[in-house]
Amino acid sequence: MKQVAVLAGDGIGPEVMAEAIKVLAAAQRRFGFTLHFEYADVGGVAIDRHGEALPAATLQLCEQSDAILFGSVGGPKWEGLSPERQPERASLLPLRKHFDLFCNLRPARVFPPLAAACPLRPDIVGDGFDVLVVRELTSDIYFGTPKGREGSGPEERGFDTMSYTRREIERISRMAFDAARLRRKRVTSVDKANVLTTMVLWREVVSEVARDYPDVELRHIYVDNATMQLVRDPHQFDVMLCGNMFGDIISDEAAMLTGSMGMLASASLNSDKFGLYEPAGGSAPDIAGQGIANPIAEILSAAMMLRYSFGLEEAAAAIDQAVEKTLENGIRTGDIAAGGRQPVGTAAMGDAIVGEL
Amino acid sequence: MKQVAVLAGDGIGPEVMAEAIKVLAAAQRRFGFTLHFEYADVGGVAIDRHGEALPAATLQLCEQSDAILFGSVGGPKWEGLSPERQPERASLLPLRKHFDLFCNLRPARVFPPLAAACPLRPDIVGDGFDVLVVRELTSDIYFGTPKGREGSGPEERGFDTMSYTRREIERISRMAFDAARLRRKRVTSVDKANVLTTMVLWREVVSEVARDYPDVELRHIYVDNATMQLVRDPHQFDVMLCGNMFGDIISDEAAMLTGSMGMLASASLNSDKFGLYEPAGGSAPDIAGQGIANPIAEILSAAMMLRYSFGLEEAAAAIDQAVEKTLENGIRTGDIAAGGRQPVGTAAMGDAIVGEL
Ligand SMILES: CC(C)[C@H](C(=O)O)[C@@H](O)C(=O)O
Ligand SMILES: CC(C)[C@H](C(=O)O)[C@@H](O)C(=O)O
Repeated sequence: MKQVAVLAGDGIGPEVMAEAIKVLAAAQRRFGFTLHFEYADVGGVAIDRHGEALPAATLQLCEQSDAILFGSVGGPKWEGLSPERQPERASLLPLRKHFDLFCNLRPARVFPPLAAACPLRPDIVGDGFDVLVVRELTSDIYFGTPKGREGSGPEERGFDTMSYTRREIERISRMAFDAARLRRKRVTSVDKANVLTTMVLWREVVSEVARDYPDVELRHIYVDNATMQLVRDPHQFDVMLCGNMFGDIISDEAAMLTGSMGMLASASLNSDKFGLYEPAGGSAPDIAGQGIANPIAEILSAAMMLRYSFGLEEAAAAIDQAVEKTLENGIRTGDIAAGGRQPVGTAAMGDAIVGEL
Repeated sequence: MKQVAVLAGDGIGPEVMAEAIKVLAAAQRRFGFTLHFEYADVGGVAIDRHGEALPAATLQLCEQSDAILFGSVGGPKWEGLSPERQPERASLLPLRKHFDLFCNLRPARVFPPLAAACPLRPDIVGDGFDVLVVRELTSDIYFGTPKGREGSGPEERGFDTMSYTRREIERISRMAFDAARLRRKRVTSVDKANVLTTMVLWREVVSEVARDYPDVELRHIYVDNATMQLVRDPHQFDVMLCGNMFGDIISDEAAMLTGSMGMLASASLNSDKFGLYEPAGGSAPDIAGQGIANPIAEILSAAMMLRYSFGLEEAAAAIDQAVEKTLENGIRTGDIAAGGRQPVGTAAMGDAIVGEL
């Protein structure tokens, strides 16, 4: 039996989480495994109730669990807080660091029934693209030191440190090459080696790791060019390997290019298969509480949890397929509705997916 | 009389430069001003002839001139060089720093006759969009210190320093707000204040400067969200204000979203109106020497030079209009050719624009 720490958070988090739990319950019945769910507060709701976005009790629950299923955090209510106390930043960054969740997997793929929602021209989209962004998540300018402010008047200065070690680059590179082996065997490493010393080392180490994967093709690209090539022709990419900062930018751009942010899952893993699973989209406070949010990203995140942390590939694949089938049947929430079709609510979408399972 | 340092560089640089000079000559005749052109080597060709991408003689010529008209640099021949010696990086970065060219203006607009070339869905493009990216160009992680490598084995580490002073942020912010006053009066400042201390200061100073521009609307956006919103709806942006690193990424993404990289000019200015003017696209070595490159980006860069460094607004506007007229007449180089029309070469495009002038 595996224990899951369920951190639903703010905005649409609790609504979409309820559907993910429903789908996981159905998967347990069908595939005969047992999950035990424990709930805790995180984000804005935790600030309101306990004074901080990641209370000690929540962190402790996560430590006792085998995986974290995360909803979404943040909203206008907490936007006035100082940056270090903001719900997203003050919950996600410490969780990533505490559990050494160095490997972020962000699939950005166009689901064929939703190709029309893609913001790119139909001749560029073709029958859809499928990019996996592998983002390093525990180092880089996010955590490098020194970081601070000094001086005063016009010469007052803010500063941050981008930094990577050979070991850090090596372990995330291996994840990317391993992932590429299960896909189309192409890794594109995103850097800025023409300007940043950190990225010169990045390029060196990635090239060294590549020698252990002669069957995988490696290409290097500058981050500025990567943002362009993604727009020009996303089909050219299979796995995109990025540091933390560039991965933040590239994974969001790739996600938006699919046109279905409500469909995209993500996994953040450490080397013990412990992971945090969360939708790629935000807490969408504008539609929270109305029962209209798209729960698919959360449901696909739950499937990733079964796959990566619990090794339940069959159940994970069944959930993926149930989602595709539901979309093929024309069932849509408002965000992905196509002209003429009546959109369904959050719970009805969850029920439809359970029905296909 | 103004002197222009003409640095044509590599690849298609010399070909497109010839057309820009042709157009400037026509503008001189029509508007009665006099430019004096002096040529010097830069980039790969300078490495081959003088051993470095920015020879002392070239730098000296630039110092004696009133503006720099730049072509493009780089190509496969020099890709094996170490990063600090590469043509682009070893010419552009020192020029920016030497002349304190802190303000990079990168217009990204869809020319209505070319709206079909835009990679976005027609309903998103509408009748075209017009974004001006204002990028800081002499500070940030490009030039911050310390920067280097230390240690060995798995703990060997590369590092770079992101840094901004209040003064640096203030002067680029004023440029952005001034530019917005001449446009649609909206500034979107791009940062990552939820993670980076430098960017907390950035947001603070931009907000302070905004108080001097009550007629201009200011919005802050995180860089990851900015890359998404540009794809979702570029019309929401007027002026985008960015630091050096994020500006590198955002300006290229915005440029590619127009679908016509060969059409986009850029200006890099200091506080004395001295400037470097260059096309936003690269040296395109694959089509160099064939007489088929699109010279419009270089021609529009020359127009920006007349506008920003020489105050010749009338002549600059006349060149802009001649370009639009030529496009409306259906004249196209291969990169922007639409189905059915026979593309013209580089020189014929230059001639057509001169004809409209
Ligand atoms: C909230 C923020 C700290 C975070 C990041 O930049 O990593 C978010 O943008 C993400 O990508 O999960
Ligand atoms: C060549 C490189 C140093 C440069 C930069 O990153 O500034 C280029 O990408 C640009 O945007 O002009």
